[in-house]
Amino acid sequence: MQAVDQIIIPRWLIPVDDSKAALQDSALAITDDCIVAVDSIAAMRAQYSAAEEIVLPEHALLPGFVNAHTHAAMTLLRGYADDMPLQEWLQDHIWRAESKWVDENFVAVGTDLAMAEMLHSGTTCFNDMYFFPEVTAARAEQAGMRACIGMIVLDAATQWAQNADDYIGKGLELRDSLRHSQLITTAFAPHAPYTVSDEPLERLRTLADEMDCRIHMHVHETDYEIKQSIAKHQLRPLQRLQKLELLGPRLTAVHMTQLLPSEIENLAARAVKVVHCPQSNLKLSSGICPVAKLLSGGVDLALGTDGAASNNDLDMLAEMQTAALLAKGSSENPSALPAHDALEMATLGGARALGLDDTIGSLKPNKKADLIAIDLSDPATQPVYNPLSQIVYSATRRQISDVWVNGKRLLKDRRLTTLDSEEITRKAQQFAQRINAQRQ
Amino acid sequence: MQAVDQIIIPRWLIPVDDSKAALQDSALAITDDCIVAVDSIAAMRAQYSAAEEIVLPEHALLPGFVNAHTHAAMTLLRGYADDMPLQEWLQDHIWRAESKWVDENFVAVGTDLAMAEMLHSGTTCFNDMYFFPEVTAARAEQAGMRACIGMIVLDAATQWAQNADDYIGKGLELRDSLRHSQLITTAFAPHAPYTVSDEPLERLRTLADEMDCRIHMHVHETDYEIKQSIAKHQLRPLQRLQKLELLGPRLTAVHMTQLLPSEIENLAARAVKVVHCPQSNLKLSSGICPVAKLLSGGVDLALGTDGAASNNDLDMLAEMQTAALLAKGSSENPSALPAHDALEMATLGGARALGLDDTIGSLKPNKKADLIAIDLSDPATQPVYNPLSQIVYSATRRQISDVWVNGKRLLKDRRLTTLDSEEITRKAQQFAQRINAQRQ
Repeated sequence: MQAVDQIIIPRWLIPVDDSKAALQDSALAITDDCIVAVDSIAAMRAQYSAAEEIVLPEHALLPGFVNAHTHAAMTLLRGYADDMPLQEWLQDHIWRAESKWVDENFVAVGTDLAMAEMLHSGTTCFNDMYFFPEVTAARAEQAGMRACIGMIVLDAATQWAQNADDYIGKGLELRDSLRHSQLITTAFAPHAPYTVSDEPLERLRTLADEMDCRIHMHVHETDYEIKQSIAKHQLRPLQRLQKLELLGPRLTAVHMTQLLPSEIENLAARAVKVVHCPQSNLKLSSGICPVAKLLSGGVDLALGTDGAASNNDLDMLAEMQTAALLAKGSSENPSALPAHDALEMATLGGARALGLDDTIGSLKPNKKADLIAIDLSDPATQPVYNPLSQIVYSATRRQISDVWVNGKRLLKDRRLTTLDSEEITRKAQQFAQRINAQRQ
Repeated sequence: MQAVDQIIIPRWLIPVDDSKAALQDSALAITDDCIVAVDSIAAMRAQYSAAEEIVLPEHALLPGFVNAHTHAAMTLLRGYADDMPLQEWLQDHIWRAESKWVDENFVAVGTDLAMAEMLHSGTTCFNDMYFFPEVTAARAEQAGMRACIGMIVLDAATQWAQNADDYIGKGLELRDSLRHSQLITTAFAPHAPYTVSDEPLERLRTLADEMDCRIHMHVHETDYEIKQSIAKHQLRPLQRLQKLELLGPRLTAVHMTQLLPSEIENLAARAVKVVHCPQSNLKLSSGICPVAKLLSGGVDLALGTDGAASNNDLDMLAEMQTAALLAKGSSENPSALPAHDALEMATLGGARALGLDDTIGSLKPNKKADLIAIDLSDPATQPVYNPLSQIVYSATRRQISDVWVNGKRLLKDRRLTTLDSEEITRKAQQFAQRINAQRQ
């Protein structure tokens, strides 16, 4: 008998692999931070002796969600401004509030609130882009969450850095400080084609090649972005990125609501990863990412919530449902993005977009133990003909009962084990009161 | 001091009226089945003495949701078949299962499961269309839920009735038996233009006029329906209904995804009520109801989930969020369907579509006490700048803590008081096992 730390015995086990199966009578074993085995309950009990056996009789066990695009700390601006045109929302409200309020403390409290929300809703890893990324990284490490922290780059000065060189320098310093982390990776995060000029983009491409580092960027979010680029550069943003040799397998391009058929072919050929953020795109009327066409064209897809100021939550279950419904509605094909494909976007697809698909994103031996349990006993997810259908089309976040990251149980029977929800909420409320009182 | 049964003191009170306000320092008083007063806490304590005072410190109090279109008992087919073309889904799966399984017992168990789900998610009243409506009515009365029960009519025979005359006869008998009910009303429910021929439709129009009874019907759900009608009748379905004099203030037309500008004008002029079912329409790729155009054209709008076989839940919070996001995305206007308008569709708009807007749908004195509390202390709905934004864009169903229907607290601190969730779930699972075992 081989000793393991935990054996988990769920009602259904969904590995997220080519079988697209929901296994019954199966179990999973964890030792330290790793999945040791996925096998039948009988085989598992014959071979392994567990320090702890966790039986989840009405639950599905699946890989944790990978939120492939967010700005975690923006939870502090959740619902600050809604239902208005994009430029008014951004310039008169969000940017104004950010320039006044964003500092280390804002990012610490906002990130903690985001992680409390993400863990409760089954997200085990997030791909972040925001200011003071060293604070986001430290908070994630402290909470035990996995994250890919964006080394943000802009031309313009902000509270965090003065110019592109300053951003890149600070980012590289952060990357270096995190080189031994078990949980945190980094990616270059040039904000968008319209906020970063050619010279820093060329430097990032060279650095990314040298360091084998991914690039995380908003691309083709709106029609306005395309028109602006054509006016300024006589090129669509994707053409400009190609000219700058950024259009390759290291690029994770977020939003992509405006795509020509030839661009979809090019993305597939160059193995660019695309992140779909359907709720944010709908709420801001940015356009709709052509998910069905991208999938049939062979482009790797991931799913993200975007920040809480434009979503207004970081709930990957809800995002997955919206993605699945919207793909069918917008492609006029009810077979588009079936349940397992939507789940794959939210898990293994996200891992691919972060360059972590050897490490996380599915349940198989030797991967890190990042996994979640969803309790399907709620009347809204009964009866169960197919747990995949219930998870994608009917479940909501409070049905997530347990979350493990790197083998550690961060949500246990719906309670956070590393974060103090009440204390975080109290701090977030204090911030909101100050921000609201000084609203211009 | 006037004696009242209950005084409820929430953090925010959202009456759903022209003020579009979220009131603070306000309270609501209930006696028997009615709202007696909505006033400041101070005024309320000065004037009323309550047998019970309920303080909800982190909650918003609002009218209960009115699900303006569903087939409650179809919860037993939730997730039975997904991700396939409409005709295959309907003919090869849903209709086949229904013809084999739908009987009094199916409808009783399915309706109970639906009501457990609806009460947990804040729905206090539902507009139903299904077979064995006398069973649905009896179960709703038993559980204490408000419902408008459709007197379903088809040309074709089913387990419940042989032909249109038989359906109408059984429906009228049911209506008569419910004439003293405090909770249940009835409406004629001819299934759709393509399943009911001219003669019964004319008879229903006469009966509806004589009895001042509403008509609840699927109309313009898909492009295929329009084409079929033109081929058969040389008329679009709305033209045919107009010719049959059914296009008037008594008609509640569900789906309406295919509408010409002239048809929108006509709907407004004739005061037809339209029910939007965005999740079902997306999932089946039926098309998108042009909500922004209908609202600006002055058409009264309500919101429905449709049945759980095509949604796959009966969650009005999720439906409201989808409606708000989709209206913006599909109209390319981020100001379309702002939060309070979406909430009005889900409450007062539903009451209008059921002819119950004098009775329910908003919080004001002399209306029936149908109301719900949403707990906003969840990290995903913090901090709160505007509770309307949190409710429409961020909250999920398990944040519904309390539900009152007709003054009676049917959900108390997240527990059902009139339904036994475990027993219902057990029966639903037994049904699903039998249905699955004999799947053809």
